[in-house]
Amino acid sequence: MSADTATPLLTDPSIDAPFDFAARQERLWGKLDGAGIDVLFLPASQTDLEYFTGVARRAPSFGNIGYTNHWISGAFISPGEAPLFVLTRHFQEFDLPEGVDGEVITATESDDGAAVFRRAFDSYRARPRSIAVGSRPVNEHCAHESAAPESIAFAGRAWAETVIEMREHRPDARFTVADTLINELRRIKDPQEIALMRRSAAIVDAVMAEVTPHVVDGVTELDLAAEVDLRMRKLGSPGASFDTGVWAMGPSLGRDASVRVSVDTLHAGSGVSFDFGAITRGYCSDFGRTIHIGEPSEEYAAVYDIVMAAQEAGRAAAVVGATGGDVHRAARAVIEDAGYGDWFRHRTGHCIGLDVHELPYISEEDDTPLEAGMLFTIEPSVFWPGRVGVRVEDVFLLGDEGCASINEHPNDLVAN
Amino acid sequence: MSADTATPLLTDPSIDAPFDFAARQERLWGKLDGAGIDVLFLPASQTDLEYFTGVARRAPSFGNIGYTNHWISGAFISPGEAPLFVLTRHFQEFDLPEGVDGEVITATESDDGAAVFRRAFDSYRARPRSIAVGSRPVNEHCAHESAAPESIAFAGRAWAETVIEMREHRPDARFTVADTLINELRRIKDPQEIALMRRSAAIVDAVMAEVTPHVVDGVTELDLAAEVDLRMRKLGSPGASFDTGVWAMGPSLGRDASVRVSVDTLHAGSGVSFDFGAITRGYCSDFGRTIHIGEPSEEYAAVYDIVMAAQEAGRAAAVVGATGGDVHRAARAVIEDAGYGDWFRHRTGHCIGLDVHELPYISEEDDTPLEAGMLFTIEPSVFWPGRVGVRVEDVFLLGDEGCASINEHPNDLVAN
Repeated sequence: MSADTATPLLTDPSIDAPFDFAARQERLWGKLDGAGIDVLFLPASQTDLEYFTGVARRAPSFGNIGYTNHWISGAFISPGEAPLFVLTRHFQEFDLPEGVDGEVITATESDDGAAVFRRAFDSYRARPRSIAVGSRPVNEHCAHESAAPESIAFAGRAWAETVIEMREHRPDARFTVADTLINELRRIKDPQEIALMRRSAAIVDAVMAEVTPHVVDGVTELDLAAEVDLRMRKLGSPGASFDTGVWAMGPSLGRDASVRVSVDTLHAGSGVSFDFGAITRGYCSDFGRTIHIGEPSEEYAAVYDIVMAAQEAGRAAAVVGATGGDVHRAARAVIEDAGYGDWFRHRTGHCIGLDVHELPYISEEDDTPLEAGMLFTIEPSVFWPGRVGVRVEDVFLLGDEGCASINEHPNDLVAN
Repeated sequence: MSADTATPLLTDPSIDAPFDFAARQERLWGKLDGAGIDVLFLPASQTDLEYFTGVARRAPSFGNIGYTNHWISGAFISPGEAPLFVLTRHFQEFDLPEGVDGEVITATESDDGAAVFRRAFDSYRARPRSIAVGSRPVNEHCAHESAAPESIAFAGRAWAETVIEMREHRPDARFTVADTLINELRRIKDPQEIALMRRSAAIVDAVMAEVTPHVVDGVTELDLAAEVDLRMRKLGSPGASFDTGVWAMGPSLGRDASVRVSVDTLHAGSGVSFDFGAITRGYCSDFGRTIHIGEPSEEYAAVYDIVMAAQEAGRAAAVVGATGGDVHRAARAVIEDAGYGDWFRHRTGHCIGLDVHELPYISEEDDTPLEAGMLFTIEPSVFWPGRVGVRVEDVFLLGDEGCASINEHPNDLVAN
């Protein structure tokens, strides 16, 4: 990333503007109505709630953290109504310093969580439909007003405990997973979201440029990974969008790409693959390059070209109306034709936004037509343990006129 | 941590010994039988599955990662039978380099996930009860052999989607949450687990000693947090057991403890609280100290003493048969009596093991009698924004003769 491109990327005024949660909620109401869903439950610490209400995730934890009544944490959303949050006291005290924009029912650690949860849910029975969020007028949408909710949807990654408790309470209700419906809203990014994604891309571009000279004989993978993580944070990312990977593959190394980082020292003759991402107001990047230490072998150079050609084939195939399967097959064909198909073992990519892996996937099975405003990775690889490892990964934005990377870091073969 | 104590902690032979998963599974079978549960589903990437089968979590991700059919990922466990794993191909290829010890049903991304999941579950109908794990003989336990499972349990944090899909398949089955039953097994740590917990504690002790001299005017919270993370990894922890917090509080700072780390520069007159943990084979530590920069005020010194006295009161109250509530009230009374009760806003602690927060909690509402072999934090605080912030946190092991910290780093007031 050159200095002159960094400045506009990092200062786009929409980056700091408030999100229009009211508009997002109204689009969600339409989807819920269309699917005949009375009430949707979105759990706390997940991106759906963040997308629709601004209640952000905290940093992820390797070991679970939890409080008494934790399973109730989240919000109910019903067409025409403001979100109704159900939160534990601890969560509010230490995870929501900025509070929430909406009505909150709190469970202390001494409360009967099930009773609190049922009370919140039951308010939908005879709930007045005239709650307003700020100055926003609310639809007078009365279809379900006098009946108990009979169709309840959940985010797919809500807790099993929440569903099971709801089933105890409403054994005859219809339960569905709302992920497809929600993805239809989230997968098309608006200009503000695209600006945020560009900024997350600009951060990884800058970090890769800074770290590349350090990829030399004698450093450890861990040192490089720590350097990547620290530099992302210094450039404004509150953390890594997923666990940073730095791993060496090559003729003398039995190592596979499934071990993402080690304390091993790097040596000449290895290809060192980087896989990392930054965060801007929740929006994630996902980026990869492979740097060779020492003079690359003929095979490494050939495989590097093959992987680059595969990425370009994927990019060219990614047009409005094509599917993720089409893009995957286009990229895959290049690697198969070159004789390395057995070592390209994963899908070609995935959409990306608040989550790192979002639907649709750039994968054999995905037949969703791609649309303008989608952002997705194209990340072909050849990972052949004991021989050669190369991957490049960029995030591409699909427009009506085609598909272009939002990353600007070069992807020429680099050998230090 | 002095050098002479470090050596035995870090070289206990049980640290590298295999876990006895067969024994853990047999104890689980007994619990399931006792509760009349036919089949238990444990999701992948969670600690219950790791505890009973060794299928480890990968590092946590801020943005979700996911694959087609991801919701099926996990294992069924039924009394007398080896675990039956249901896993996506992607998960196996890149998250399970070491494979699993048991039968696996794989779903590729093109498979119908629901059909694969149902086929796995339905194998419990007429499943022969003579599968062996390695050389372990298996109970001939035939109570449910000819009937379809009617009582199905889930880990509380399994995916909503998995429960909803199961309900589609078995609408009349009884669904329960298995967390209490599983916690009864996990909450008492055996000597090997205690050795692993001691090693995780030794890592944070060493890191705190190394980082303390760097807590000076002019460094940033982020620099210190990055230093903590890197040093934990260099000492053998594969990552942080939860997101590392380093935050300054004091008279000139409006800052609260809910913001865990910032890029702010530290200045004299602040108390800098550290909250971090290491990992050893999945077992987590959770540790805290507060370091003052510059000459502490009278109030800071007084509050430091109060917090230490609260921790000691908690420790003294933690005896076999006391409850987490008793310990919490003992610690809390010290801070309340000193007039700072409004600023001790969280529970006193929590048990800890593979997860950072495990039941029972050292908290007002918890009336579980404490038992020998439990490990828990005692972590009182006074967090008064704009005035003073102090917390100390150690992990304590309860034995028949009382309760002692497994951390050895001193907790005297330190002012740099």
